[in-house]
Amino acid sequence: MSAITIQSPFWKRYRDSVAHDMVPYQWEVINDERAVELPFESAGNEGGESEGMSRQWSHAVRNLRVAAGEEQAVFNGMVFQDSDVYKWLEEAAYVLAYEPNVQLQTLCDGLVELIARAQAEDGYLDTPYQIKTGEYENRERFGQLQQSHEMYVMGHYIEAAVAYWQVTRNEKALDVARRMADCLDQYFGDEPGKIPGADGHPEIELALARLFEATQEQRYLNLAKYFIDVRGKDPQFYVKQNTQLHANGATSIFPGMDNWSSEYTLSARPIQQQQTAEGHAVRVVYLIAGIMHVARLSGDEELAQTAQRLWDNIVQTRMYITGGIGSTHIGEAFTYDYDLPNGTAYAESCASVGMCFVAREMLEHEIRGEYADVLEKELFNGAISGIALDGKHFFYVNALEVDPDASERNPDRHHVLSERAEWFGCACCPANIARLIASVDQYLYTVRESERVIAAHQFIANDAELLDGVHVRQESDFPNSGEIRFAIDVPEGSRPVTFMIRIPSWCYGSYSLLVNGVDMKDAVQPVDGFVAIPVQQTAVITLSLDMSVRLMRAHTSVRHDAGKIAVMRGPVVYCAEGTDNYEPLWNYRIDRNLEEDIQVEGGAGILDGLKVLRVPAVRRVDDDAQAPLYALANERFNAVEQHTRLTMIPYQAWANRGKNAMQVWFDEMH
Amino acid sequence: MSAITIQSPFWKRYRDSVAHDMVPYQWEVINDERAVELPFESAGNEGGESEGMSRQWSHAVRNLRVAAGEEQAVFNGMVFQDSDVYKWLEEAAYVLAYEPNVQLQTLCDGLVELIARAQAEDGYLDTPYQIKTGEYENRERFGQLQQSHEMYVMGHYIEAAVAYWQVTRNEKALDVARRMADCLDQYFGDEPGKIPGADGHPEIELALARLFEATQEQRYLNLAKYFIDVRGKDPQFYVKQNTQLHANGATSIFPGMDNWSSEYTLSARPIQQQQTAEGHAVRVVYLIAGIMHVARLSGDEELAQTAQRLWDNIVQTRMYITGGIGSTHIGEAFTYDYDLPNGTAYAESCASVGMCFVAREMLEHEIRGEYADVLEKELFNGAISGIALDGKHFFYVNALEVDPDASERNPDRHHVLSERAEWFGCACCPANIARLIASVDQYLYTVRESERVIAAHQFIANDAELLDGVHVRQESDFPNSGEIRFAIDVPEGSRPVTFMIRIPSWCYGSYSLLVNGVDMKDAVQPVDGFVAIPVQQTAVITLSLDMSVRLMRAHTSVRHDAGKIAVMRGPVVYCAEGTDNYEPLWNYRIDRNLEEDIQVEGGAGILDGLKVLRVPAVRRVDDDAQAPLYALANERFNAVEQHTRLTMIPYQAWANRGKNAMQVWFDEMH
Ligand SMILES: [Zn+2]
Ligand SMILES: [Zn+2]
Repeated sequence: MSAITIQSPFWKRYRDSVAHDMVPYQWEVINDERAVELPFESAGNEGGESEGMSRQWSHAVRNLRVAAGEEQAVFNGMVFQDSDVYKWLEEAAYVLAYEPNVQLQTLCDGLVELIARAQAEDGYLDTPYQIKTGEYENRERFGQLQQSHEMYVMGHYIEAAVAYWQVTRNEKALDVARRMADCLDQYFGDEPGKIPGADGHPEIELALARLFEATQEQRYLNLAKYFIDVRGKDPQFYVKQNTQLHANGATSIFPGMDNWSSEYTLSARPIQQQQTAEGHAVRVVYLIAGIMHVARLSGDEELAQTAQRLWDNIVQTRMYITGGIGSTHIGEAFTYDYDLPNGTAYAESCASVGMCFVAREMLEHEIRGEYADVLEKELFNGAISGIALDGKHFFYVNALEVDPDASERNPDRHHVLSERAEWFGCACCPANIARLIASVDQYLYTVRESERVIAAHQFIANDAELLDGVHVRQESDFPNSGEIRFAIDVPEGSRPVTFMIRIPSWCYGSYSLLVNGVDMKDAVQPVDGFVAIPVQQTAVITLSLDMSVRLMRAHTSVRHDAGKIAVMRGPVVYCAEGTDNYEPLWNYRIDRNLEEDIQVEGGAGILDGLKVLRVPAVRRVDDDAQAPLYALANERFNAVEQHTRLTMIPYQAWANRGKNAMQVWFDEMH
Repeated sequence: MSAITIQSPFWKRYRDSVAHDMVPYQWEVINDERAVELPFESAGNEGGESEGMSRQWSHAVRNLRVAAGEEQAVFNGMVFQDSDVYKWLEEAAYVLAYEPNVQLQTLCDGLVELIARAQAEDGYLDTPYQIKTGEYENRERFGQLQQSHEMYVMGHYIEAAVAYWQVTRNEKALDVARRMADCLDQYFGDEPGKIPGADGHPEIELALARLFEATQEQRYLNLAKYFIDVRGKDPQFYVKQNTQLHANGATSIFPGMDNWSSEYTLSARPIQQQQTAEGHAVRVVYLIAGIMHVARLSGDEELAQTAQRLWDNIVQTRMYITGGIGSTHIGEAFTYDYDLPNGTAYAESCASVGMCFVAREMLEHEIRGEYADVLEKELFNGAISGIALDGKHFFYVNALEVDPDASERNPDRHHVLSERAEWFGCACCPANIARLIASVDQYLYTVRESERVIAAHQFIANDAELLDGVHVRQESDFPNSGEIRFAIDVPEGSRPVTFMIRIPSWCYGSYSLLVNGVDMKDAVQPVDGFVAIPVQQTAVITLSLDMSVRLMRAHTSVRHDAGKIAVMRGPVVYCAEGTDNYEPLWNYRIDRNLEEDIQVEGGAGILDGLKVLRVPAVRRVDDDAQAPLYALANERFNAVEQHTRLTMIPYQAWANRGKNAMQVWFDEMH
């Protein structure tokens, strides 16, 4: 691992919060030292629970003790409850990398020991299928891959183990992961007696690729590739398994999912023939991340093209301006090209986190600004919006328009919360965001060892040692400021490097570039979104990005943004909240003619350290309650328009001041 | 019954179609002479069916034969399948009134005989509970009023019986209805041993009021009032019944409904204390119609105020411009004030039909133009939009914006069809629309016998004999033309009458009024929306209404219409369809400055006889597929605007030319 220290004030705030608040908080939750208050139907997926399961207590670590035979209890929680423990371990591993802590490491070591004891003789580890209480009594291992999440859960352990081993060299952690992978290798394959199928929820693919990188065990890479290639070979695979399951008298884990189509589970055809991103958004992006990782490690160009094709489909037609993906809560799924409803969006935090994984893999494959632009979009908007500024409250769903009345009183919008929750029944998101924040240092550079290329693609201030000791220092207060300074030192006796810097698409060519004080903007033109600067020994590069506020519109095929404007500054998408403005928000129209007149101010209170905008707008003065529901448009009643300003804050920072209305897209006037 | 003959070309078309197409068609369906193709999840309420039930065959009449012991079979269909038969009978009765037909009457007589044989000894009649197959095996009569629809079904029979008796004087039909009512009277009440509860789906209340009017049996009016008053007295009534049901080992009819709140079932408090229209829209309006009817018959002013309050809540804050009500498909329900999403609307055809019942009752209580305005809105838009111009295809849901891609590929919109269906699994709507059309003559006048007042409130050309032989002839081609001519003849020797004519709110005072050729506009000012003209013996009244096209806007509290324009002409709401315009429709903006320039043309093809509008608009020229998903608003790419015209057709006439996009509300420009 490279040694990278984050200095960015924006990110240090979150990273401190993960280290000091989230890691202890989540530890308490998974160990039943803290009850959780779950929001009503936060995610639309409260199914899959047996009678008698606790909604208030996680029991995730207890499940492991029960599986280890050290305690008597029924299994508790979602079928993938184990993953909460593993994501915590992964997150703690990353925290230990930037904030060593003997006590935390001792906790982690102990947890690894427990996990090892819970693991079955043959390497299998998934507590519901080991405890076998309640509905799990007559469900067999790997008997309902569409729904069981067994490999999903083990994949999360493997990711955690690799991370923990990389930071602490705890060999036992890695050994448990190897034994899991060996177990899967025994069970799955085209050979007679083996199961020719993949997990309904991709994750094992990217995990096995990481395990291969840690262990260099070729079988693991082969198995990862197998799980990718077997998907969709038999489009009826899940149906057949479900039929067999019911014939054996066992119930489905999520009965409503039985009939979900092979399109939804991305198994209608071999993935190499899949043209569009369909079904559950998180699954899709986890799969693409795995595909691109395996493509790179195995040199499989067809797989790389598959990942590229699905990436293009998402980024060009199915992504909210915030980076959110997944347009419906029903199945937490993609819908179709350009269908991006703002008020009923799903845009799960995990899906945006997953897009960061994908973007990083795309960059590893090819250094293109487009990938880093999307990564930045997620890091400063869609992924980070899932966590409150206090680090202790979360969103599962990240809609672009929220009306507390609608969330409460229109069931089509029950999944959209207007206040962040402490925790979720399906707790995937908080830990996923935390592991991204804690490992954000791994998302800043793409390095090509043989070519001695260092590509700096994120403007997150840091201090890094890369390659054979090349020292890179990036100073900035991005995204508050667009002034970025890189100081590069190549150690004496080392060969020169090529230092690449991304020129973000959002500055539309408006930037300045000084290398050792000399204006090099014209001399060094960006190629594929990057300028490349050869550095013999030392260089000081100053990049100055135009941070003017930009008014954006969507493609005319996007019905829900037609005639509307979104506001951005740098990579940051802005929104208006009820607390700063006159409500209802929908009566504001942003005045496109006064774009130059937008004021940028420093935020106050909990928004300290962020930039707040005051945007010229007109507001339809609201009709009084006695006004008729429908009236002549040319009769004005009270509905005159007032020239005013709309106060806007960064989208990721909304819902930090109580229950609130929020809106990203506004009617335009010009 | 008054003798009223409809001449209106607009209505004759539909009435002929009901007589010649629908009545025979539905007869074939309910008698299994015709299989039906049901759309996928048309109504979001496919639940409540047992294994082995047919989705292709209705078996509704067969159920009656089975209940009568004349055939062996399992019960088939929705729990309220019987109502399909009764609504057919009611519809046929109305048809017989305007188009006598011996063959049809013989069919009806035979059906009444079958119904009489199916009726239990004690008057009970609901086939699932009599056949008792499948899940009904251990469900007891009246044991799950929240869901069983037993009284709903019997209410529909009573309505049909009263109608059939009024037209044909078939006493057996009425006798069966009496015996049903007697049965309910035995079962329900506050006395010990009786059940103190009301049906989850109101309908029996208005049916018993009608039965009282036909029979003058006071017990029936008392029972109607009882069902109104008992509702909400014990907010836990349904919960207790469900608990008892499950304790007895029986399953729920609609398991998902068990937990629906007492707010949803309008049983959270006595109805006299209910402030807003909550829950299932059809149930609410059926209940209000019953309340107002009972209030009038019993002189209960508190009940009348209750109906008025709920009416106001609906009309002032919860009604689409088309008259549609019910803002969500989840529970087919109301949501909250001003929440009127266009693309996810429910606006069930039955709910608009029910609003006609309510409006008529409101008028009977008080002759106010407001009630007749809403009745007209439903008759020319929301209710009639549920039936195709061919009389054989239907909508259950009447959204105000339809995108075939969204209907197909976004599950939040699966309930919104972009093509009319032949029939529905829950077949309430087609028959409901048909009985409204066939009885539209009963919605034209409100008559006060003692005061000798005739209020003509609908501009539907007809020939009527009212009171003691007062002859009224209304000539018009409304809504194509606003020229309306009334000729009134009071029989010799009869006392004079007061003839009232509604001045619709939509003409905003712009009309002319001639009485026997004399301009009386200034002399006779409208009061409560009506002008009153004393007629000694004969009068010819010419009313000329301003039919200028009007651009409408919604109250500023309506989020989904903010910044948008709807187009009306007279009472007719217009929409644009994909087939007449460049798609996507959402890129049109209606030019408010060119309102005067709107062209009114005659429709062609299937739209012959309707007026089509050509509305000045600008269209954002669409970006090509390669254009970025988000771009600078001030960079134009391809998105220049084109001045053009938007072709608009009456909302009720859409979806008669194949699968189509449709939109009512358009962005405005001015
Ligand atoms: Zn998640
Ligand atoms: Zn209906």
